Amino acid sequence: MKQIDRTAQTKANIVQAFVIIVKQRPALQIKVSDITRQANVDRGTFYRYFESKDALIEDCEEELLNTIYLSRQNILQSLKSVQDFKENPSIISPLLATIADNLEMMDVLLNRLGNNHFLIKFREFLLDEGMITIDQYSGRAEKIPLKQRELFSTATSSAIIGLISLWSSKPDEFTKQDIENVIRIIATKGVFGIV
Amino acid sequence: MKQIDRTAQTKANIVQAFVIIVKQRPALQIKVSDITRQANVDRGTFYRYFESKDALIEDCEEELLNTIYLSRQNILQSLKSVQDFKENPSIISPLLATIADNLEMMDVLLNRLGNNHFLIKFREFLLDEGMITIDQYSGRAEKIPLKQRELFSTATSSAIIGLISLWSSKPDEFTKQDIENVIRIIATKGVFGIV
Repeated sequence: MKQIDRTAQTKANIVQAFVIIVKQRPALQIKVSDITRQANVDRGTFYRYFESKDALIEDCEEELLNTIYLSRQNILQSLKSVQDFKENPSIISPLLATIADNLEMMDVLLNRLGNNHFLIKFREFLLDEGMITIDQYSGRAEKIPLKQRELFSTATSSAIIGLISLWSSKPDEFTKQDIENVIRIIATKGVFGIV
Repeated sequence: MKQIDRTAQTKANIVQAFVIIVKQRPALQIKVSDITRQANVDRGTFYRYFESKDALIEDCEEELLNTIYLSRQNILQSLKSVQDFKENPSIISPLLATIADNLEMMDVLLNRLGNNHFLIKFREFLLDEGMITIDQYSGRAEKIPLKQRELFSTATSSAIIGLISLWSSKPDEFTKQDIENVIRIIATKGVFGIV
């Protein structure tokens, strides 16, 4: 194994150890020594990769947001207008697949840490992306006012994060398809779309 | 002034002092002594009403949820079906007026404490209410499956909390009417209702 592979592997092992421990006890009570014991590495190794427990969490957050960003970019390249989405809602499927691949980490960051740090970061990320998207893909000739875009983008981001939070907390109860269906309906028919 | 009035007034003063202080520094750093100094009461008086700072916060949360619950009950009594809402969306106006009256406390509990305690409580409250409402007011003859109701109710609750969170953090930028408009559109036309 090359040095670079071993480095990445060790880092991934530490993150995985953290994910295992955070499911067993409140995040505030977790010490670096708990993580190193679970990962079977010494303290020096941990601190070669992360300055602190908080730095490890920050790293997980950034990596997850980057992954989502890249997946979203791929979708937007093939999307011409909102009409495209209405006609072919499965266009968001790859994005949900990315989330499905990272569902355990989502659960840790959104539900298990007991603070709203990632929620705020994720909402800001989706809010910014949403506001750009509304501006870019709106079928209307005139610009939609900033205030309107902020309100709609907030509602949408919050709904999506709520769904992801539920999905990640009960991964055995919901499938990717369930989430895709509900997003398609609320996006095009409204939250009363099922009744 | 009767004893009971004075008691309620002192309690309200302590809560108001907490609201003022929480806007000035991170909630974790606030001590009971900061609150008593701001409220101009002694430590003994504080502890006559609240066991601790956390108990004070818990009390604020419960009172706010009760107020919303009562306001919501009033609306549901006059609502016969989802169709009623679609035809007369201003039916939710009294509920938003209740939130407007408590916007400062909303901001404290949702945005300023730095934890997600109230968010989770509020979401569970709206989720339960939402699931009952979908069941009760759906125009469909057959029952909507539990999983569907949970997904739709989660999306709706999360969107509403996101909007309230934005509104309460920028009370000078948004009016009650702005929030009412966006809720009406996303409820009946979907999150793409503006584009």
